[in-house]
Amino acid sequence: MLRTHTCGELRIDHVNQEVTLSGWVQRVRDKGGMIWIDLRDRYGITQLIFDESKTDEKVVETARSLGREFVIKAGGKVVERFSKNDKIPTGDIELDVESLEILNKSKVPPFTIEDDTDGGEDLRMKYRYLDLRRGPVRRSLELRHKMLQETRKYLDSQKFMEVETPFLIKSTPEGARDFVVPSRIHHGEFYALPQSPQTFKQLLMVSGYDRYFQIVKCFRDEDLRADRQPEFTQIDCEMSFVEREDILATFEGLIKHLFKNVKGVELTEVDRMSYDDAMKYYGSDKPDTRFDMKFVELNDVAQGKGFNVFDSAELVVGIVAKGCSEYTRKQVDELTEYVKRPQIGAKGLVYVKYNVDGSLKSSVDKFYSQDDLKTWADKMSAIPGDLILVLSGEKNHTRNALNELRLRMGSDLGLRDKNTFKALWVLDFPLLEWDEETKRFHAMHHPFTSPLLDDLDKLDTDPGAAKANAYDMVINGVEVGGGSIRIYDRGVQQKMFDCLGFTPEEAKKQFGFLMDAFEYGAPPHGGIAYGFDRLCALFGGSDSIRDYIAFPKNNSGRDVMIDSPSTISNEQLDELSLGVKKLQEK
Amino acid sequence: MLRTHTCGELRIDHVNQEVTLSGWVQRVRDKGGMIWIDLRDRYGITQLIFDESKTDEKVVETARSLGREFVIKAGGKVVERFSKNDKIPTGDIELDVESLEILNKSKVPPFTIEDDTDGGEDLRMKYRYLDLRRGPVRRSLELRHKMLQETRKYLDSQKFMEVETPFLIKSTPEGARDFVVPSRIHHGEFYALPQSPQTFKQLLMVSGYDRYFQIVKCFRDEDLRADRQPEFTQIDCEMSFVEREDILATFEGLIKHLFKNVKGVELTEVDRMSYDDAMKYYGSDKPDTRFDMKFVELNDVAQGKGFNVFDSAELVVGIVAKGCSEYTRKQVDELTEYVKRPQIGAKGLVYVKYNVDGSLKSSVDKFYSQDDLKTWADKMSAIPGDLILVLSGEKNHTRNALNELRLRMGSDLGLRDKNTFKALWVLDFPLLEWDEETKRFHAMHHPFTSPLLDDLDKLDTDPGAAKANAYDMVINGVEVGGGSIRIYDRGVQQKMFDCLGFTPEEAKKQFGFLMDAFEYGAPPHGGIAYGFDRLCALFGGSDSIRDYIAFPKNNSGRDVMIDSPSTISNEQLDELSLGVKKLQEK
Repeated sequence: MLRTHTCGELRIDHVNQEVTLSGWVQRVRDKGGMIWIDLRDRYGITQLIFDESKTDEKVVETARSLGREFVIKAGGKVVERFSKNDKIPTGDIELDVESLEILNKSKVPPFTIEDDTDGGEDLRMKYRYLDLRRGPVRRSLELRHKMLQETRKYLDSQKFMEVETPFLIKSTPEGARDFVVPSRIHHGEFYALPQSPQTFKQLLMVSGYDRYFQIVKCFRDEDLRADRQPEFTQIDCEMSFVEREDILATFEGLIKHLFKNVKGVELTEVDRMSYDDAMKYYGSDKPDTRFDMKFVELNDVAQGKGFNVFDSAELVVGIVAKGCSEYTRKQVDELTEYVKRPQIGAKGLVYVKYNVDGSLKSSVDKFYSQDDLKTWADKMSAIPGDLILVLSGEKNHTRNALNELRLRMGSDLGLRDKNTFKALWVLDFPLLEWDEETKRFHAMHHPFTSPLLDDLDKLDTDPGAAKANAYDMVINGVEVGGGSIRIYDRGVQQKMFDCLGFTPEEAKKQFGFLMDAFEYGAPPHGGIAYGFDRLCALFGGSDSIRDYIAFPKNNSGRDVMIDSPSTISNEQLDELSLGVKKLQEK
Repeated sequence: MLRTHTCGELRIDHVNQEVTLSGWVQRVRDKGGMIWIDLRDRYGITQLIFDESKTDEKVVETARSLGREFVIKAGGKVVERFSKNDKIPTGDIELDVESLEILNKSKVPPFTIEDDTDGGEDLRMKYRYLDLRRGPVRRSLELRHKMLQETRKYLDSQKFMEVETPFLIKSTPEGARDFVVPSRIHHGEFYALPQSPQTFKQLLMVSGYDRYFQIVKCFRDEDLRADRQPEFTQIDCEMSFVEREDILATFEGLIKHLFKNVKGVELTEVDRMSYDDAMKYYGSDKPDTRFDMKFVELNDVAQGKGFNVFDSAELVVGIVAKGCSEYTRKQVDELTEYVKRPQIGAKGLVYVKYNVDGSLKSSVDKFYSQDDLKTWADKMSAIPGDLILVLSGEKNHTRNALNELRLRMGSDLGLRDKNTFKALWVLDFPLLEWDEETKRFHAMHHPFTSPLLDDLDKLDTDPGAAKANAYDMVINGVEVGGGSIRIYDRGVQQKMFDCLGFTPEEAKKQFGFLMDAFEYGAPPHGGIAYGFDRLCALFGGSDSIRDYIAFPKNNSGRDVMIDSPSTISNEQLDELSLGVKKLQEK
C-alpha cells in the first residue's frame, strides 16, 4: 500500500488518523529543530512535519537528505496545524511523520517546478514531462479532459453515435498536403493520414447512421507557423435529414453545454451575421463581437474634396474609438506606425479628434472643413470625446488593415476581456475562391460543400458568385468551428469537381467511392467540425494552443523531447522499397 | 423541415397527428388498390400506406416509382393499423401518406440490405457503406458506441484523466514493425505511428498525472493474419503509486461496469491463475474457464509399462470428456484426425472409455491392464460414462495440442455458451523469452515490465527464470487486456535493456528520454491496455472483430472501398526526397 490518501484529501476531520501519503517534495524548510516539507501530487499539497525532539532520528536524517522532486512515502498521524494556511484545502492540518521512505530520487530539475518557472520555452519542451508537473500546464490539461467528457456527454445525449474512422486512408491532392505512410506489403503504394474524416462521415450518413461524432486526430503537412501543429484534434460531427437551422440549433446547444458545465458560464444567444456583413462591418470573417466599434464606410462624405489619397481609394472606411479624443500625438503616431507595419501594410492613418468642446481636429484639416468633419462624425455616430480613425485604399486590403486596428483598439481600451464570451455564426460564405496563381477556383470550405439552393444555377453561369450553405462558429474573434450542408447528389458533386478543375478521371480516382455512394440513396446531410485544441485554449483564456496539448511539436514539427522525426535503419527502408534522395538530386 | 419524427418513434398515442418522416425504402408491397411501404432509418421501421381510392393520384404514382433504398420524405396522418405487428415498436400504427417526395434515388444495391444478406465478403467490403446499413453491422457499431461511452464514464468516475498522446512519434526497432511517416521538412527523417502510447503514458506518470486513460488508435505493420488489422483501438491506462492489487481491483471494476451497463450482466468474481498453472492445467496462457476439463498429468501412472510412445515422452497428459464413453469409433477417429492436423500436430490420440458398466476400454489395451486404466481414471476423477483422451510428447507442444482438443471438446459438448462470461486474471508471466533464432532474450510483454520484486536479482544470475509483475485479463479464452507494474528505476531499466541485448548507445538513442525522465523523480506505476476491437466482439458474441470496425481493412491491409494504399504523385515523392526502388533492386 503506497498511500491511504492523496495529497489533496486530508481535512480537519482526519486529525488523529494514521495515514500514508506518497508524492513529490515541493519544498523543504529546515529550521534546525523542525523540518517542514510540502508534499505534492496531482490532487494538492500536504505539509509534513518532523520535530527533532520527538521524531525518530533516522526519519529526520532521511528528511534532511531530501531534495526537490524526490518521490517519497510518508506515514504518520494527522495533526491540526498551529498556524493554518487558508490558501490550500489541506491547510488546517499537517502530517506528523513517523516513517519515511524514498521511493525515487531526483536530480535537480533544469527549471523550477512552479507556476512561474525560470525555464525557457526550449528547455521546457525538451523536459516536457517536468513542464507538465507545473500547475498551469496541468490545469490546462485538466480543462481539456473536462471538455472531452462534456462534449461526448452532450453529443451522446443528442443520439450522436461515436464511430471511429480509419487513419490509414488515401492521399488526395485537393486541399493541404497529406502526410503519407508507405506500405510494405503493397510495393510503391502509400496510405495517407486523414486531414479530416470528411468523406468517411459522409459515407456514414449514406449508411443511415443519422448522427455521427468523433473527437479525432487529424494531420496536415503544412509549412508550420507559430501555433500550428502537424497533428491536431477535431470534434467532428455529421447529421442527416437536416437543414442548416437544425445544425445551428444542435451546435449552439453543444457550445452552451460546454460553457455551462466546464466554465459555469451561461452563454447568451449566438448571434448571426452574413459573411458579407462580417467583411463590411468588421473586415474579417471572424469578427470579435465582444465590442462594437463597427466599420463605417465614408466614400460618399470623404471623397471629392481634393484629398487625392481618399479620392483615388476604392474604399474609405473608419472606426470610432470612444472617449479617445485626448490621445496624444505620440499615441496617434504609435497607431499610425502600427498600421504601417509590413504585416498590416496600410499607407497611413487619418484621424479626427472630436474634442469635448465640440470642435474637430484632424490630420487632414487642409482638405476638410469643420462641417465636413462633422458630417463624418454624424455618419459614424461619434460624439464629443471620441477619436475617429480612417483608412483607405483597395477594398479587401483596407478592410484587413482596419480589422487589425480595430482589434488593437479593442485591446487597448480593455474591451476584450478573456472572461467574457461572445459567440457568433458567420453564414453564407462564398462557395469558391479564385486563385490568381493557378488560374482556377478553390473550394472555400471543401469540395463537398453545397451551394445555397438558390445559387445552384450559378455553378453553370457564374461560379464565383455562388454562396455556400456553410457556417462558421466564431467566439471572441476566434474561428472555433465550421461546417456546411453537403452535396448529396452525384450530378451536383460532379459539377462542383468540374468547377474546381478536376478532370472526370481525377474525380473518379480520388472520390469515386463517394460519388458511387451517392447513387445508392444518399440522404440530405450536413455537419461541422470544431478545432478542439483551439477551443480548449479559448476556454482556458489562452492565445496559445500549445499548453493545451500534452506533447506538442515545435514550430518545425519536431518533438524535441523524443527527438523525432529521426532517421530509420536501412533495413526499414529496404523493407519499404524506399530510397532517400540526396538533397541535390531533387 | 425534413422530418418531425424518426422511423422508430411513432406509437398509438400519435394517432391522428400530422407528421413527416424521412428514410429509406426497405420494401414496397403493391396490392393493386393499396400500396404499403416499409420506411427505414437508424431508429426503426414505420409502415406507410397509400390507398388508391383516397390518396392523391400523383402521390400514388410517385409511390409506384419507388425502388429499394430510395430516400424519401413522406407527410401524412398517423393511423391505427388494422392488423398490428407486435414484432416492431411502431407496429400499432401506420402513416396514411398525403405528400411524398423523392429526396434521392438509388440504383439497385449489389446485395440485399437485410440481416441475412446475399452479398459475399468481398462485395460487402467494397460497398461497405451499404453493408453498414444492415441491422447486424449497425447493432455491432451501436454496441461499440455504448462501450466507448461506458468505458470513459467509469474511468472518469475513478479520476482517470484523459490525455491525448501524439501520433507522429519515433521509430523503435524493438517489438513489431512500425509504420513510418516521412518528414518533408526534415530531409531523410521519419516519424513513426505508435504501436501503443507506452512510453508517453509512463512519462505522464513521471509528470504526476496519477491516473491516465485514452481510447486510442495504435498501428502495427505486421504480416496480416485473418482478423488482424494494421490499425486497431486500445483502451490504454496507467496509474501511479499502485501495486498490482490496486490495478487488478480497478480494472475488475471496469469490466464489471461494462458488463452491467452494456449487457445487463452481473459478472461474478474475476478468478486468478498463475501463468504456470494456466499452462499446466489448460495448456494455454488464455484458458477458457467457462468449463472445467482440466489437464491431468499421467507420467507417473502411464510410463514404465512398455508403451514406448508414452515411455519416451516428456509429458503424458489427458482430459476427461464427461459422459462421452459411448462415442463411436467414427467420432473418436475424427478427434484423432483433428489433433493430427498440421496446425495442431499431435502424433496420435490415446483414448480410454470408462463404460457405464465400470469396465475400461482403451486404444492401448495391449500395454495397460484394467487396473492400470482404473488408476488413470481415479487420478483424473473420471467416473463410469466418461471418455479419457490422452496426448504425449514434448511438453509445450503436447500442452498446445491438448489445449486445442479441450476447446474442441468444450464446443462439441456445448460448454462454451456465448452468453456466459467468465473472466480470469493470469498472473506471474515469465519476464523474458529466449529466442533460438536470434540467440537472445525478448521481453514477453515489453521492455518496461518490472520483474517481481523477489526476482530482481535473477536479472544478473538467471534472467530466463525471472517472473514478471505482469497480468493478462482473459475472458472466455480470449485475451482482452494485459499490463504490468513498470520499472521506474533507471538502473533496473538499464539492466533490462542489457538482458535484451541493447547496447547502451542503442538504449540511449531509442529510450534515452524515458531513462532521463526516471532520474527526475519517477513514481512507482503500472498500467494495462485492453484490445478494444476484440473486447467489443466478445461483448457482441462474435469471433470476428471486423464487424465491430466501421471501415476495416482486408487481410492484405487494403481498404477495397477507397482503394488504399495507392500510388502517390512524383511531385509528392520529390517533396519527400523519396524514391521507390524497383522490386529487383531490393
